Amino acid sequence: MDPRFGLDRSITLPGDFPLAGGAVLPELTIAYETYGRLNANATNAILICHALTLDQYVASPHPRTGKAGWWTRLVGAGKPVDPEDWFIICANVLGGCMGSTGPSSIDPRDGKSYAKRFPVITISDMVTAQARLLDHLGVQRLAAVIGGSMGGMQALSWAVQYPDRVGKVVAIATAARHSAQNIAFHEVGRQAIMADPMWAGGDYPPDKPPAAGLAVARMAAHITYLSEAGLTEKFGRRLQNRAAVSFGFDADFQVESYLRHQGLSFVERFDANSYLYITRAMDYFDLAQPHDGNLARAFAGVQSRFCLVSFTSDWLYPTAESRRIVRALNAAGAPVSFVELESPFGHDAFLLDAPEMNRVINGFLLS
Amino acid sequence: MDPRFGLDRSITLPGDFPLAGGAVLPELTIAYETYGRLNANATNAILICHALTLDQYVASPHPRTGKAGWWTRLVGAGKPVDPEDWFIICANVLGGCMGSTGPSSIDPRDGKSYAKRFPVITISDMVTAQARLLDHLGVQRLAAVIGGSMGGMQALSWAVQYPDRVGKVVAIATAARHSAQNIAFHEVGRQAIMADPMWAGGDYPPDKPPAAGLAVARMAAHITYLSEAGLTEKFGRRLQNRAAVSFGFDADFQVESYLRHQGLSFVERFDANSYLYITRAMDYFDLAQPHDGNLARAFAGVQSRFCLVSFTSDWLYPTAESRRIVRALNAAGAPVSFVELESPFGHDAFLLDAPEMNRVINGFLLS
Repeated sequence: MDPRFGLDRSITLPGDFPLAGGAVLPELTIAYETYGRLNANATNAILICHALTLDQYVASPHPRTGKAGWWTRLVGAGKPVDPEDWFIICANVLGGCMGSTGPSSIDPRDGKSYAKRFPVITISDMVTAQARLLDHLGVQRLAAVIGGSMGGMQALSWAVQYPDRVGKVVAIATAARHSAQNIAFHEVGRQAIMADPMWAGGDYPPDKPPAAGLAVARMAAHITYLSEAGLTEKFGRRLQNRAAVSFGFDADFQVESYLRHQGLSFVERFDANSYLYITRAMDYFDLAQPHDGNLARAFAGVQSRFCLVSFTSDWLYPTAESRRIVRALNAAGAPVSFVELESPFGHDAFLLDAPEMNRVINGFLLS
Repeated sequence: MDPRFGLDRSITLPGDFPLAGGAVLPELTIAYETYGRLNANATNAILICHALTLDQYVASPHPRTGKAGWWTRLVGAGKPVDPEDWFIICANVLGGCMGSTGPSSIDPRDGKSYAKRFPVITISDMVTAQARLLDHLGVQRLAAVIGGSMGGMQALSWAVQYPDRVGKVVAIATAARHSAQNIAFHEVGRQAIMADPMWAGGDYPPDKPPAAGLAVARMAAHITYLSEAGLTEKFGRRLQNRAAVSFGFDADFQVESYLRHQGLSFVERFDANSYLYITRAMDYFDLAQPHDGNLARAFAGVQSRFCLVSFTSDWLYPTAESRRIVRALNAAGAPVSFVELESPFGHDAFLLDAPEMNRVINGFLLS
């Protein structure tokens, strides 16, 4: 068995890795998983790009939480992205905390963690790192790249940065730029982390992270992943294990208890500095920026076919953002199909049971 | 001149003040302002109720910030609520930090700040305290009570708690209950404050408040006061005093700089414990709760006329919440007029230049 392929892989690529911001990393480690078999002509590769707080464990259990892979509804035997048919790659993003080079990695030049010395990265840098991984794996061209949320930003960037390396692009619940409101919510999260004295300017020991600040950041972000209607349906004003309010500051309401749990469990599996760097990369993301705001020009050289999916109740990356991408792709003459799916579950819909989304992706991959 | 009337007034009412939660305050201080003259029959009194972080300085400069009163667009000479015609009262809410009894007040029983010993209060308690103030002022019946946001909650509660003391109710950009999403955002703010070590379980000295946590709470809340479209129009992705992003964690974007300023300036004028208690009061607010969720039954005994106003882009207390109130008032047989006004400014619209709102209120007060 080729040691490059399989679960829980990691590769360190020596030599300079230059970044969009001008800094240079002295080496690049990418932690990744592959599923299925690369065929003889290497034409069946699909790259899955993950969202802000996810990782390479798209279809295998998470090593820290033990939970099933985060997209087993889409990836796996009998699913649209079936390892029987496809060679599936999913890598922890540059800047992440699950094995790829990020702020918690050791700088080989001095043997210490990068922490706040880590350079600010971009979505484009994440994609460049993935391209290096594909070189290592012997994959010149992707049959498809698929991603939701920040994963969708990477998928769109793939088509722009490496037009001859991507056949199809599936971009779900995403945007071609971060809006003022998107930036605002991320800034709240960053300020919550940096306000925590345990953050210590970024130089916290791994076993003493700024847990309280990171939990608050996660709580604020988590609200944006859900819809008002979804929260009302799921929790409403129902109380948590009590018959009446306590007239205190305990989690009287189920929604409070749920949010606190989201915050606490997040700090078990995520690094605060990675959260700072990845949110920053997302805030910087604006495909049209190098083209004076003209998104169609950003897509001018693309050679891929595109499939865009949005969800009715997603207010983080609302349908209007997908429509903007579709219009720009149309103007650039790129083939694109687009569907807005009904869902009460807000932005998170793409990670939940979404049979219509699966049908759309399946049809697009077979087309 | 009667010392009860005028700017910057305060009255301490001795004796027990029982609260909805069962606790009892040993005395009650209300800080308030009045504008205009109470007529001979005391029939021209209007009570203005303030929102979460506002105060009694509705139409006179704020003593700490020096800024003009917060509703001078509505209250003042030539405005719909004109001191020439009306005797206008605005009081700092119970639980507040601008002079009324709240967590930063001294408990007369031991001479120490209440801090976290302060009992959890409700919107109903705020209204009861205002009624005590009216007794002191010799106002048996209000011509009208007017409020936006949390002020609207108080206005609605007035009609329910004291049906024979309120002629007209103007409730703007408000709701008859806090939704799961409303509670969720407040819980994020509370957790941000309580995560700040300076909070010290609530026992911080006045000159060493949990400023970082309170600033984060304010930033998160502030996003909910604006609309996505409003933020895009006001800031978009424009940079703050720079030609290109810094590839760092400074406030590169105007929206970041704006939010940070909102957080920092808020801590200059507001008490963290008050923020905890007042948000809790809002989360507990649900007029229908004592009536098994039947809001019409809550309004069964009202004798007031109602005017409801909502704004199209307000997603904190969206129009649907106002419509729910209108339907319940209709079912209860109460006279009600309702208008949804176009605005791109989100929840904050009621505090901004809103000539249509002014016309609506003016017409309602004259009708």
